[in-house]
Amino acid sequence: MSGHLYGLGVGPGDPELITVKALRLLRAAPVIAYPAPEKGDSLARAIVADLLPGGQLEIAIRMPMVADRFPAQEVYGRAAEEIGGHLSAGRAVAVLCEGDPFFYGSFMYLFVRLAERFPVEVVPGVSSLTACAAVLGAPLAARNDVLTIIPAPLDAPELTKRLGAGDAAAIIKVGRHFEKVRKVLADLSLVEQACYVEHATMANQRILPLDSVDAANVPYFSMILVHRKGRAWQ
Amino acid sequence: MSGHLYGLGVGPGDPELITVKALRLLRAAPVIAYPAPEKGDSLARAIVADLLPGGQLEIAIRMPMVADRFPAQEVYGRAAEEIGGHLSAGRAVAVLCEGDPFFYGSFMYLFVRLAERFPVEVVPGVSSLTACAAVLGAPLAARNDVLTIIPAPLDAPELTKRLGAGDAAAIIKVGRHFEKVRKVLADLSLVEQACYVEHATMANQRILPLDSVDAANVPYFSMILVHRKGRAWQ
Repeated sequence: MSGHLYGLGVGPGDPELITVKALRLLRAAPVIAYPAPEKGDSLARAIVADLLPGGQLEIAIRMPMVADRFPAQEVYGRAAEEIGGHLSAGRAVAVLCEGDPFFYGSFMYLFVRLAERFPVEVVPGVSSLTACAAVLGAPLAARNDVLTIIPAPLDAPELTKRLGAGDAAAIIKVGRHFEKVRKVLADLSLVEQACYVEHATMANQRILPLDSVDAANVPYFSMILVHRKGRAWQ
Repeated sequence: MSGHLYGLGVGPGDPELITVKALRLLRAAPVIAYPAPEKGDSLARAIVADLLPGGQLEIAIRMPMVADRFPAQEVYGRAAEEIGGHLSAGRAVAVLCEGDPFFYGSFMYLFVRLAERFPVEVVPGVSSLTACAAVLGAPLAARNDVLTIIPAPLDAPELTKRLGAGDAAAIIKVGRHFEKVRKVLADLSLVEQACYVEHATMANQRILPLDSVDAANVPYFSMILVHRKGRAWQ
């Protein structure tokens, strides 16, 4: 019998924001796998480091983080093959996913390669989206507001169009796109209605007004929440 | 010393999808509060019913679910007063929120009334948004897709405009608006790219193609996910 593949959302960073279900499956799996940079530590693994039972086989899916080589389909192809070997041998494999597995996560690239051949369960997690709203003390959207999730790598005209519609927006994957995003928000007179968060719920979390952000040091795990109508929930 | 107010996301329905943090705070609070219909049981309380330690004081915030009286500010005003009394007396109060407290939740109406006078912590939870994607086995959005969250109570022209832009959409609060939404999706030739879920992760979860849904029996807790580009992550 094949082992199960689990896509486990481990939450946005605070290890206590893992779900009871993901924690149970994480501890029971003989094999765990997680995305990692080419060199250095995996954030997803770091989040659960103190929760691991020890003795698990670990697969680090090392990905060059250079933008134009991402997503590197051959890396996922090799990882899927290695994971598939364990599943075929009857071993469950838990893939650790920062936040939620299906909210812009890389788990989808393993999922499409393995879901037809093996039993897969996706365990949703707390996403960075709601984690940022929680630490900012600001609802994402109220009543019948339209909320738009906008990846910062889009070009300035596209960002302008998206931010010009809708009532509230979450700009994700900010990183090196910060200056472009700030200029678009300034042109739309939305700087005052925008809040910046990096590493929400982690020990190194920072919340800043847009004008105080150093554009040269914005991590990938950062987000800007915009409330076009101001604090409409009040 | 004032007690803390906690806004606890209890997750989308499966009790195991509560976070370790929310579970800890839920069990420690001397007072819990939760939204409830005018008559009958609270869904938020039902989700955690088997997790409660017993002996907690409970406040049911009973809300007439008639659309044009919602949100009924006077109900939240009275609830905030009652909760504020406990906080002033030094008792922590945990407010149970289905899904996540700040993802279109009613917690914001208590938050704005109490956050300036008392210490408040919002504990993010797994939202119905990512829970639906998980049970459908379909990523919400991939790469640089724009994802739009659209409340179904919006009128048909507005729905058409919002669904015509963006790459992926989640239509929330479907309920009695199903037929209007289905017609908009049909006019946009998006029926094939849409999936319907109700009560995701609960025992009574149902996943249906749009054409199989009985419009007369669509619950409030239902969602339609739309992938305009098809399975673009593959």
